[in-house]
Amino acid sequence: METHLSGNTVENKKIILKCYTNGTPLETDLELKVGEVLKLEVPKGSNGVLVKNLYLSCDPYMRGRMQDFQASYIPPFSPGSAIEGFGVSEVVDSDDPNFKRGEFVAGITNWEEYTLIHKTGQLRKIQQDDVIPLSYHVGLLGMPGFTAYAGFYEVCAPKKGEYVYVSAASGAVGQLVGQLAKLHGCYVVGSAGTSQKVELLKNKLGFDEAFNYKEELDLEAALARYFPQGIDIYFDNVGGGMLDAALGNMRVQGRVAVCGMVSQNSRTSVQSFKNMFSLISKRITIKGFLQSDFSHLYPRFLEEITSNYKQGKIVYLENMNDGLESAPAAFVGLFSGKNVGKQVIRVASK
Amino acid sequence: METHLSGNTVENKKIILKCYTNGTPLETDLELKVGEVLKLEVPKGSNGVLVKNLYLSCDPYMRGRMQDFQASYIPPFSPGSAIEGFGVSEVVDSDDPNFKRGEFVAGITNWEEYTLIHKTGQLRKIQQDDVIPLSYHVGLLGMPGFTAYAGFYEVCAPKKGEYVYVSAASGAVGQLVGQLAKLHGCYVVGSAGTSQKVELLKNKLGFDEAFNYKEELDLEAALARYFPQGIDIYFDNVGGGMLDAALGNMRVQGRVAVCGMVSQNSRTSVQSFKNMFSLISKRITIKGFLQSDFSHLYPRFLEEITSNYKQGKIVYLENMNDGLESAPAAFVGLFSGKNVGKQVIRVASK
Repeated sequence: METHLSGNTVENKKIILKCYTNGTPLETDLELKVGEVLKLEVPKGSNGVLVKNLYLSCDPYMRGRMQDFQASYIPPFSPGSAIEGFGVSEVVDSDDPNFKRGEFVAGITNWEEYTLIHKTGQLRKIQQDDVIPLSYHVGLLGMPGFTAYAGFYEVCAPKKGEYVYVSAASGAVGQLVGQLAKLHGCYVVGSAGTSQKVELLKNKLGFDEAFNYKEELDLEAALARYFPQGIDIYFDNVGGGMLDAALGNMRVQGRVAVCGMVSQNSRTSVQSFKNMFSLISKRITIKGFLQSDFSHLYPRFLEEITSNYKQGKIVYLENMNDGLESAPAAFVGLFSGKNVGKQVIRVASK
Repeated sequence: METHLSGNTVENKKIILKCYTNGTPLETDLELKVGEVLKLEVPKGSNGVLVKNLYLSCDPYMRGRMQDFQASYIPPFSPGSAIEGFGVSEVVDSDDPNFKRGEFVAGITNWEEYTLIHKTGQLRKIQQDDVIPLSYHVGLLGMPGFTAYAGFYEVCAPKKGEYVYVSAASGAVGQLVGQLAKLHGCYVVGSAGTSQKVELLKNKLGFDEAFNYKEELDLEAALARYFPQGIDIYFDNVGGGMLDAALGNMRVQGRVAVCGMVSQNSRTSVQSFKNMFSLISKRITIKGFLQSDFSHLYPRFLEEITSNYKQGKIVYLENMNDGLESAPAAFVGLFSGKNVGKQVIRVASK
């Protein structure tokens, strides 16, 4: 719970990065701290908005920002400061005429109770909706959902009847990829790391088949079993050995969309491949992508996915943890697959 | 020299595959044999043509046919029989109304002095030309040239001013890729395995820069030196560590055309990569291809390259070995980079 001090000031609790790290993030890399006392007013002339953060999104890409590597597509976090990420927030005070107190916004915010946001151009105003939870704006209707949408339609170039494989299939991105592929008339198999997730894939998310990759000694053989005709599209969220196994099972003119490499411990992990020759013999395309390159499609995505969701054609699984103090464990859990569905932290209730 | 027996029969010398092999081909995997006595006449009703083979093409892809692997895009050779490949031949006798004695053809033939070809549909009639040597129809104007053309224009989608890197750059394919890239207004760097080849790349083939990869301890650092702004297009003829080094130097939206993996000892060699994450952060596309998927472009290719060659805008390096008996050594030499330019065997003079 937030601590209100005298008048309209708060102790602004936050999650800071303690120091740069390599490898898989640990809970101890992050720390809950009581911030400086914050007055709940936007300084006049700042053009900023002060928001109360309601939901924060845990996303695997954030691991990259915990490393001291400047040359990436996104700069690293600053040790000692609150980390940032996608969130859903309520406007508490505004010096930007586009935003009013009481409105809800989705966008980049800090992992803290209240944030003074100066870059208001990146905020998207959202409406409360009886059907769509506010938190979905960092999941189904946020970056992960858009990643699934842009990656599947634009990068994979799917055709009806094609064979689609999705790894990390119950995650924030994978669960939507599989459902879009089904709506597109594809045959879809997903993999995940627990039997509970496998059940959800088959019984709740509508995948044709699903398997627990941790129970397979030979991933390439497993994929051959699930795809006797081979794979047309592999939506890769994990990289490494799973990518290699898929390469060994691709069909001619197959496409691999490389969305994430959550299996890799660090940016420069050495990965071994024995099926690279398939690239030539099967004329495979491997394409890495970032959703931000497709932002012109965002309005269409929002409209289509909202409509599909409201018609009951799409479902979305969320893993909601309560309280900022739960954030370090929730975030770190992404990398061991603790989350079932999109991992969100509820910082405050609306 | 061929041995004529009584009348119009010959001892038909040939190169056979002794038995299936894995790994890098050895001279002893192939053997020169005197064939069955061949009558220089096409059996009536066979619809075939009997050709005298003049030039045979040594191509790295043939290694794949020396392995007992049925599931590839092309079936393996038969041990004990003459191997086959691209060649330029003269029609000696014909039962196919489309071909006449004395005409020249390019297409798939056997590694032997005379071949009875039944699949005449794949033969392309070629004209003798004062400027263009007949042998170029298995090189510049044959499969390797077309591989360069289709791979560069269709797979790499080049733009003027882009930074292009070509490995195995003085080889049958690479030397044309580099020249096409220069004609397209790109900046082009090639690598090869001897200082002689490096000189040729710079002084004869018009590459902007070239280096001997065998003199580099750190390929990634070498590429960073030659491409301080990074690589837009990598035309990959070698795979493995060179591909990894290039991945570490690609620019955003870079493209890698995977044409060959001559560095790999076998279809399932394990390759280690440490730069796979660049796929995502730089949004790189890696695309394997086979020229045969682009055959609709062949007529345009022939016209354009012939025209450019005749105008002196393109040159082509050939490594010509004399006599069928030189074939095993010439073929095996491909894999240690003995050839300077396109490796051809002259079986007979026209």
